[in-house]
Amino acid sequence: METVKNAVGREIPKEYADQYGVFEGQYARKNEYRRAAGKVVPTLPGETKLVSSLREAIEKSGLKDGMTISFHHHFREGDYVLNMVMEEIAKMGIKNLKLAASSIANVHEPLIEHIKNGVITEITSSGLRDKVGSAISHGLMEKPVVIRSHGGRARAIESGEIHIDVAFLGASSADPYGNANGSQGNATCGSLGYAKVDAEYADKVVIITDHLVDYPNTPISISQTLVDYVVVVDAIGNPDGIAKGATRFTSDPKELLIAENACKVITASPYFKDGISFQSGSGGSTLAVTRFLAEKMRESGITAGYLLGGITSNMVELLEEGLAKKILDTQTFDRGAAASIARNENHYEISASFYANPGNKGAAVNQLDVVMLSALEVDTDFNVNVMTGSDGVIRGASGGHSDTAAGAKLSLILCPLLRGRIPTIVEQVNTVITPGEGIDVVVTEVGIAVNPRRKDLQEALKNAGVNLFTMEELKNKAYALAGTPDPIEYGDKVVALIEYRDGSLIDVVRQVKR
Amino acid sequence: METVKNAVGREIPKEYADQYGVFEGQYARKNEYRRAAGKVVPTLPGETKLVSSLREAIEKSGLKDGMTISFHHHFREGDYVLNMVMEEIAKMGIKNLKLAASSIANVHEPLIEHIKNGVITEITSSGLRDKVGSAISHGLMEKPVVIRSHGGRARAIESGEIHIDVAFLGASSADPYGNANGSQGNATCGSLGYAKVDAEYADKVVIITDHLVDYPNTPISISQTLVDYVVVVDAIGNPDGIAKGATRFTSDPKELLIAENACKVITASPYFKDGISFQSGSGGSTLAVTRFLAEKMRESGITAGYLLGGITSNMVELLEEGLAKKILDTQTFDRGAAASIARNENHYEISASFYANPGNKGAAVNQLDVVMLSALEVDTDFNVNVMTGSDGVIRGASGGHSDTAAGAKLSLILCPLLRGRIPTIVEQVNTVITPGEGIDVVVTEVGIAVNPRRKDLQEALKNAGVNLFTMEELKNKAYALAGTPDPIEYGDKVVALIEYRDGSLIDVVRQVKR
Repeated sequence: METVKNAVGREIPKEYADQYGVFEGQYARKNEYRRAAGKVVPTLPGETKLVSSLREAIEKSGLKDGMTISFHHHFREGDYVLNMVMEEIAKMGIKNLKLAASSIANVHEPLIEHIKNGVITEITSSGLRDKVGSAISHGLMEKPVVIRSHGGRARAIESGEIHIDVAFLGASSADPYGNANGSQGNATCGSLGYAKVDAEYADKVVIITDHLVDYPNTPISISQTLVDYVVVVDAIGNPDGIAKGATRFTSDPKELLIAENACKVITASPYFKDGISFQSGSGGSTLAVTRFLAEKMRESGITAGYLLGGITSNMVELLEEGLAKKILDTQTFDRGAAASIARNENHYEISASFYANPGNKGAAVNQLDVVMLSALEVDTDFNVNVMTGSDGVIRGASGGHSDTAAGAKLSLILCPLLRGRIPTIVEQVNTVITPGEGIDVVVTEVGIAVNPRRKDLQEALKNAGVNLFTMEELKNKAYALAGTPDPIEYGDKVVALIEYRDGSLIDVVRQVKR
Repeated sequence: METVKNAVGREIPKEYADQYGVFEGQYARKNEYRRAAGKVVPTLPGETKLVSSLREAIEKSGLKDGMTISFHHHFREGDYVLNMVMEEIAKMGIKNLKLAASSIANVHEPLIEHIKNGVITEITSSGLRDKVGSAISHGLMEKPVVIRSHGGRARAIESGEIHIDVAFLGASSADPYGNANGSQGNATCGSLGYAKVDAEYADKVVIITDHLVDYPNTPISISQTLVDYVVVVDAIGNPDGIAKGATRFTSDPKELLIAENACKVITASPYFKDGISFQSGSGGSTLAVTRFLAEKMRESGITAGYLLGGITSNMVELLEEGLAKKILDTQTFDRGAAASIARNENHYEISASFYANPGNKGAAVNQLDVVMLSALEVDTDFNVNVMTGSDGVIRGASGGHSDTAAGAKLSLILCPLLRGRIPTIVEQVNTVITPGEGIDVVVTEVGIAVNPRRKDLQEALKNAGVNLFTMEELKNKAYALAGTPDPIEYGDKVVALIEYRDGSLIDVVRQVKR
């Protein structure tokens, strides 16, 4: 198979390279374009948007074979909407649909049947978990899934590369004219950041809710001006699957050690000063860093300008303590944070485009000082894999990983040297999601490596007495403990294309051999 | 001159009738369309949007001869932005510009020179006041001004009929990445409802502020994702001209009588019940109605669902007393209301499209129960003129008049029978802004007339003991007191085209003879 090698050394089959272009560097593309736009059928006075069933909404939307439908993943493992809509569509006999979900969760396992039955023939998503990921890695689909980052998906929608014919958007509350949010009602998920983009660019928008309120429903995350139909169903999701309680503070000594090391890096960096902005994830280590960082901030009298991203209760605590002035929230991770977005005017909902779209007039990630990220694997070129497991099977999500890494002034990977008997620091990652040029520091429990591109950071950390390693040294430590990993045996068939956030291909995933 | 007669009997010159179509009824057009869209040049990490001067912003925007520029009128008579930008543009020698302002105030008199010098050769606006209106009525411009309602302007922008090349948008606060609002800073105007539409659809957006704040500025009325450049100037406006204190309650017996009559109509109508929504203006009579209505609401235990429109302090009082649940605000009329939008989460900012655009998927006016409107003239067909004076000179603004009249279930005109010695109720209005089919009731100090189309209302009012007149009777009373008005002498030249909100021509204004 003829291939084209991209800037991170990956061989991209020519057929896809021609179609998407290959990755040439994180800031290589800066293309002027005209935004895409959705179709509008005006709603006249006296006309209603309320329909009596999902079936009626699908019929009125004009959904036909071959069209593109979209869903958001704010309800995570508690989502009922995607399965409910797909079941109805399948019953109606509509085929060959393109599914453009912001992400796909374990709970969406029924998709496997819809793919087998030809209801869905193409997928783009941030991630694929569990059984769906495994089935696709084993060759379930004819056409490769297109994996996009959160910012990359927004870019693809705004530029018209993804054209959504019908968006089916669950909302924890809505009024009969379509004004919707995720912060009122029973199945609250907080921010509707991904859904906002779909609503703005889709031809037809269907709001699905289990909590209809009087007009006008506020706050307005999705505006009536973008909504065609409103359907009331019994339940849009399981609140316990949508938002968990706040994660408890880790007691894992390895995670605590990683967190301490990360905190050292951040406080020794030039970005640790009044007005600092940062994003952290919801993992054990990153939650712990935030806690350690808060202590340092109190000691030093430093207040954060804003916190970005997927938001957890412990970030809300920083806001409410006055240690952070604002929160910009594109996705709310737990119940406490969902309650905060309804309560705190400085906990501000933003769209996925505002958050991370590399194609718009300026995303929030571009203003970010520090981001703490996780990794399934990091290689000696600092390339990161958050998509495929050590068996080569798709089980992760691109998320905002490459978006924040490209935007932030300081991007840290927090990861253990090994997971069980499997090295995390490797010679070459299975799948590149984030290119090494976007990663500044890798923090493990046994040591820290700074990207050689960042001499300034190496200097700052050395001056602060931080002991540094090379990635080669960290990898050698991992391999010494666990042995050199066996290469994964892949087939030829491409099961997923990995788009970098700018739309170029940074990698492909091939079918795993059983 | 060949003409085409429209549905309100106005003769539209064929050349314009061909271009725009003529008015055929308030709900005659329901055209599917694809939204227009602006151009985007991505902003990469590290790039700044701050420019050092207005000149630099204009240069970087790529503004060229023949392009369309836009401004908002939220700063009303206190606005410095339009004159400041136009002066710089004129100095740069750019010519033949199309000015697409949301409205034009007295303070914009320097426009006359820019028109004479060929800097501006076309104008679209909601209104024209004072010297600019008079100069244009006397034939200053070669091409007619296009008058659009607030909803009609939003429609024209969203459908691409107005394509804004560069929007110059004043904001009382902004951060360096362009997040802007009108509720923080010195020159606060409250809602930025008109500006929101321009920002969304213009190719280039320049934010002009005198109050630069740390990133991220919230609330975000205009998003960084839409903004190209940010300019800081000494002052964007005169706070005293932007927002006055709350208007004092009228003591004019005629206004009070009109208000009492209007209150009778509303309370006798089927819409006076819990959840009622209404919009009132800022005139003496309408402010008084709101006060009388509030008393009736307290007596009857009725709470308004929402208040819409241009918002005044006395509507904020209803909100804060709990007599209204929410306010939807596209334009804030006074200082108290501007302070409220920053303070009350239920005082909600909406765009002009959300407010009144007849072309989108559903504007707020469509949900409105009652609107109280003013008039310069109303005729026996219930057609309303709010544009030209009794001398035929342009001095008014289309505003949201026809938008709310078309949307609301009950639209009332509140006006005196005469103004001085000039009848307000006439045989035929000089200029039709709102067609009679959109007007349900005309309320004067001497009597009330119900549109014969509304038998239900006639019945309801008669049952409530309200004495009704025909428009013919009211007109006869006016003519008996003041005599039959002399017809205005117009020339042939068309100086303004009056677009109905749907884009068709409802009337034209001809040059007045000196």
